[in-house]
Amino acid sequence: MSAIRHALATRRADDFAAWYQEVVSAADMAEESGVRGCMVIKPWGYGIWERMQRLLDARIKAAGVQNVYFPLFIPLGNFVREAAHVEGFAKEMAVVTHHRLIADGKGGLIPDPAAKLEEPLIVRPTSETIIGDAMSRWVQSWRDLPLLLNQWANVVRWEMRTRMFLRTSEFLWQEGHTAHDSRDDARAETMRALEMYRAFAEEDVALPVIAGEKPENERFPGAVETWSIEAMMQDGKALQAGTSHYLGTNFARAANIRFQDREGVQQFAHTTSWGVSTRMVGGLIMTHGDDDGLRVPPRLAPQQVVILPMLRGDDGDGALVDYCEALRAMVAAQSAFGEPLRVLLDKRPGKAAAKRWDWVRRGAPVLIEVGPRDREAGTVSLLRRDALWGEGGKPAFQTPTREAAAQALPGILAEIQGALFDQAHARRDANIERGITTADALADYFAPGNRYPGWAQVQWARPTGPALDAVVERLKALKLTVRNVPQGAEPADGACLFTGERAVERIIVARSY
Amino acid sequence: MSAIRHALATRRADDFAAWYQEVVSAADMAEESGVRGCMVIKPWGYGIWERMQRLLDARIKAAGVQNVYFPLFIPLGNFVREAAHVEGFAKEMAVVTHHRLIADGKGGLIPDPAAKLEEPLIVRPTSETIIGDAMSRWVQSWRDLPLLLNQWANVVRWEMRTRMFLRTSEFLWQEGHTAHDSRDDARAETMRALEMYRAFAEEDVALPVIAGEKPENERFPGAVETWSIEAMMQDGKALQAGTSHYLGTNFARAANIRFQDREGVQQFAHTTSWGVSTRMVGGLIMTHGDDDGLRVPPRLAPQQVVILPMLRGDDGDGALVDYCEALRAMVAAQSAFGEPLRVLLDKRPGKAAAKRWDWVRRGAPVLIEVGPRDREAGTVSLLRRDALWGEGGKPAFQTPTREAAAQALPGILAEIQGALFDQAHARRDANIERGITTADALADYFAPGNRYPGWAQVQWARPTGPALDAVVERLKALKLTVRNVPQGAEPADGACLFTGERAVERIIVARSY
Repeated sequence: MSAIRHALATRRADDFAAWYQEVVSAADMAEESGVRGCMVIKPWGYGIWERMQRLLDARIKAAGVQNVYFPLFIPLGNFVREAAHVEGFAKEMAVVTHHRLIADGKGGLIPDPAAKLEEPLIVRPTSETIIGDAMSRWVQSWRDLPLLLNQWANVVRWEMRTRMFLRTSEFLWQEGHTAHDSRDDARAETMRALEMYRAFAEEDVALPVIAGEKPENERFPGAVETWSIEAMMQDGKALQAGTSHYLGTNFARAANIRFQDREGVQQFAHTTSWGVSTRMVGGLIMTHGDDDGLRVPPRLAPQQVVILPMLRGDDGDGALVDYCEALRAMVAAQSAFGEPLRVLLDKRPGKAAAKRWDWVRRGAPVLIEVGPRDREAGTVSLLRRDALWGEGGKPAFQTPTREAAAQALPGILAEIQGALFDQAHARRDANIERGITTADALADYFAPGNRYPGWAQVQWARPTGPALDAVVERLKALKLTVRNVPQGAEPADGACLFTGERAVERIIVARSY
Repeated sequence: MSAIRHALATRRADDFAAWYQEVVSAADMAEESGVRGCMVIKPWGYGIWERMQRLLDARIKAAGVQNVYFPLFIPLGNFVREAAHVEGFAKEMAVVTHHRLIADGKGGLIPDPAAKLEEPLIVRPTSETIIGDAMSRWVQSWRDLPLLLNQWANVVRWEMRTRMFLRTSEFLWQEGHTAHDSRDDARAETMRALEMYRAFAEEDVALPVIAGEKPENERFPGAVETWSIEAMMQDGKALQAGTSHYLGTNFARAANIRFQDREGVQQFAHTTSWGVSTRMVGGLIMTHGDDDGLRVPPRLAPQQVVILPMLRGDDGDGALVDYCEALRAMVAAQSAFGEPLRVLLDKRPGKAAAKRWDWVRRGAPVLIEVGPRDREAGTVSLLRRDALWGEGGKPAFQTPTREAAAQALPGILAEIQGALFDQAHARRDANIERGITTADALADYFAPGNRYPGWAQVQWARPTGPALDAVVERLKALKLTVRNVPQGAEPADGACLFTGERAVERIIVARSY
């Protein structure tokens, strides 16, 4: 047993779900709002989402995609199209039926019966249909294509069971919607978005992902192909962290997105859509968190370096703050990852040790404590969040000079970014089982006693229709799903795990969020 | 008469409202969505809003304010508090009453009667109450103060008569909400936010504004003081472009935001709130637009420089595009206003003249056309949007060498930013009448025949209660309101225009949006 006294009450190994909730709370990421299924995203959590937005948005813009904003409300009629093809259509969505609130005469308020909408409005669960309508107006000729649009927005899907960041009734996301004059161009965009998500996840979020195509039964309804990036959480479950869909001409036919091609012939456009949401924040927590709280990859940290003067409420405080302010200025003059370094001098009142552990739990990449002795010696006490503990269960402080610390920070931050990725990558690769060739072995591997079994990469014959349904049912009994067909996996060379036929590809099978 | 053939069909002087609508459409800013009162913000319009967000957000963060995100939905109960004090309470708000949509069995869809919410949810018209609830949880001690929060969000206020950007049922905004341990600190924050808005409007939007306190009758309900920035549109009307409220302890009492002070005594916090919305985009259009369309201040332009190769669809196009691509790289390597210059090489198919006028209508600050003769001569044809017309009603092209053009651009953009501000400032100051001392003269000045009369700055005795109501009624008959009491105006030295008493301050009186 280690002598370390960790900063959280719950260990990952003891109760992963409870640990997750504790990190969300202890790292000051979010809290329940009192509105069913909706969370309040607190400054540190929202700051991480803002960083994700900024970095992903730069990648989106670099690809020539333009941001737009469509209405929050979607006319009910837009869903009738969709419902026409579905037996017993029922969808969990927030329905606006009135546009006025009045007093009920008994001290309460009620929707004004005189202000009932003729047609209810739906709070967008996605903007697919309303953007499709606009595309049908905006696209006339091949000259208008490709049309590359993206929207950052809040969306609502009424969820019965919610978990902060992973599944909430309201969540924040970006939704890309593009239209093209050919299948090839639309498929190229689908793959570009997928690759953009892979690079964003791996380079910015330090989240190793496996990109690949979803099997037929996991496709977005109406899509011709659905691709995803899948990340392994520390409990071995998979998190779908982003999706990219090639929609063929299905959505263009429904929304009447047509163009005159170079020969003057009317054609339906080929469309795509792709999205990443605040779910990614949940993925970050479950990948990089440890028993001391969150660890934020430096590229995403709202504050990369936090300076904590050990104030005593006496006359010495002024000189200490001056010393720290000079350090702050030195650090702020540095750049990391091509941006000015983000540094906070935390002068709030409070005990130094309490403030240190607050920032540890929040996962600021580097803490720099400065006490009177540091100031006298011209040094600082520097603590890396990715290497918190030293010998004897004590925090592993380094004590460089103030100038050396400031100069070393860009390199330290790059090291931390790399270390978080490497740790997650090594853990994931160690937890993908590639040797399973029979259904019995698969069932054994995912038996209840094997607590965090990770993923299995197996071979299959890519069954379709009823044969696929049978596979899905068998996996469901083990609480498993096919995550995707990894890009770049070795060709199949064996038999299908499920049917015994000759396999055609490899798939990832896992439990998932 | 000038020989100029302007790029819009409607002149400002002929029909300002129709001109506004034409600019919104011709500059590709926004369009009707088909959802009542909600607009689609198109790429160029949204790009301008994104620039506003980025620049204002940097100012907000520099003041130590932290961004957060609160739920879209507010429980109906939160409005009961407010309604308790209001006779015949009725508010235009979007009310969510159901959480599921089902087929009605006749090919249509209806809200599922079995999925009626126990308590309706309101789509936020502002987040005042729900953020107040969180503050009451987050604030315990004086150490937790000041608490400085901001949110970028969509809000909904059901509007009967809408106009794009100026008044829409859904709009985008930021709302700052802060809590403090003293009146002085909260008032200082109120004034800081006001000054931030003034600087943002004048430096970034090139919108000269008058900052000042609103009269009592124009205060935000529950506020102790309401301050605004007011801008003059080209039709002489005022646009309230931002507000900052000192709320005293009124909202803290309603939401129970209390803290233990340094002496251990429980106190109510003093709070503020402040906001700027997509309305600012409407103000930008009505301030800087001209008879050729929009003119976007360079700091806000999504593209500051647009390069248009005059493509002919023949073999010469390749060399022309190469020449332009080299120019684009030269320009992109430059900085303006401390950011990399934003430059677009527009290679889309289409006639060169049509593309030029598209970009003129959108108001890109600088257009650079390049034809084969430019390429041979090593020059470009540069057109400034703020100085479009030369002698003989022809576009005022300059023809510097390619290198000289690239190097001159940062300076040209700074000149354009300054010129737009100076023009608007001169126009506003020329249209504030300061000599009116009687109610009759005021009525004459704003008589129906005087089409774009501008504003009047007059003296008053700051009446309150019924005396103020009487003034408000008299002004209303002239379709006028008191905009604010300008900061820094000369002290009063005469009689109150309305009561004849000794005046105590000067006020701006105007028609408004």
